[in-house]
Amino acid sequence: MPLIRFDIIEGRTDAEITALLDAAHRAVLIAFAVPERDRYQIVTEHKPSRVIAQDTGLGIERTRNVVVVSVVSRARSQASKQVFYAELCRELQEACNVEPSDVIVSFTSNSDDDWSFGNGVAQYLTGDL
Amino acid sequence: MPLIRFDIIEGRTDAEITALLDAAHRAVLIAFAVPERDRYQIVTEHKPSRVIAQDTGLGIERTRNVVVVSVVSRARSQASKQVFYAELCRELQEACNVEPSDVIVSFTSNSDDDWSFGNGVAQYLTGDL
Amino acid sequence: MPLIRFDIIEGRTDAEITALLDAAHRAVLIAFAVPERDRYQIVTEHKPSRVIAQDTGLGIERTRNVVVVSVVSRARSQASKQVFYAELCRELQEACNVEPSDVIVSFTSNSDDDWSFGNGVAQYLTGDL
Repeated sequence: MPLIRFDIIEGRTDAEITALLDAAHRAVLIAFAVPERDRYQIVTEHKPSRVIAQDTGLGIERTRNVVVVSVVSRARSQASKQVFYAELCRELQEACNVEPSDVIVSFTSNSDDDWSFGNGVAQYLTGDL
Repeated sequence: MPLIRFDIIEGRTDAEITALLDAAHRAVLIAFAVPERDRYQIVTEHKPSRVIAQDTGLGIERTRNVVVVSVVSRARSQASKQVFYAELCRELQEACNVEPSDVIVSFTSNSDDDWSFGNGVAQYLTGDL
Repeated sequence: MPLIRFDIIEGRTDAEITALLDAAHRAVLIAFAVPERDRYQIVTEHKPSRVIAQDTGLGIERTRNVVVVSVVSRARSQASKQVFYAELCRELQEACNVEPSDVIVSFTSNSDDDWSFGNGVAQYLTGDL
């Protein structure tokens, strides 16, 4: 946790996708101070016509590099989410040449009893985490 | 925002998918009165065996046209969600020949600080939106 | 409801996927006591490099059989979710040879007015459910 989905346009190489996931995870580590191996990432690649990402009138231009990041996490502070937005953009630009204008993020929150990381138990309840 | 996922069965043409997304966005505009370019849509096409959409005993029959719509949004009133369900079905029937019996919708709510539409900031917090 | 997404690695046969979904639904029926046809399941298959599922330091090893289960549901009790985690693992191991160490689950909760199962209405509000 968090569990993060990345919806992107098809066309990146495997190495580029790995770089993207590594960069995003560095932002997670900085923003939320989770354990290094608290890493759950799923990428789905789409044909261009299957992703529409406009700008709510903000004047932001998207390219084929657009990354839609959907995070499910236990509650995080407003401050830590803001750090995540900034760090994620910085990392993706540095490591992947993805412009900050192509990074869209949405969070959904849940609770301790909403997670099982394996073995059929809720590790935040059992004391394993 | 909202960010809307459409899970559908493979087989539609590009034009049909575009028509579906356009129709769904018209329903968003009417139900939630968001800006015209507040449009974030992701389509994933599946083999028929990968989508099971029964009816909770309601007696609703599904076809290959079934559309599972998953919305993530800031809190919306009960009334506006009800308008959305009705408008979405009306639009999809008129524009795409999708029967209302094939339209399943689920909402998940989040908050102002849960969105970044680009540039590494939370636009609902910065005052940009 | 619940609506359940299964993110898995490509390579399973259709029959194996059907067995997986059937097994998962049996766990839903036991844990949440919903109607038999309260079944909404979506499977997405990914290339191995598109799913990273580590272990938050728990010492859990994953294989290509890993199943990431994302549930959206009305509020469920902590006890019923714990039953679900356990039953899901038991079922997947028995029916599909998926080890409990390969089963990751995350819940997100919503409300009565967040669901429409068809026909443009919110069945938990109209009294249909």
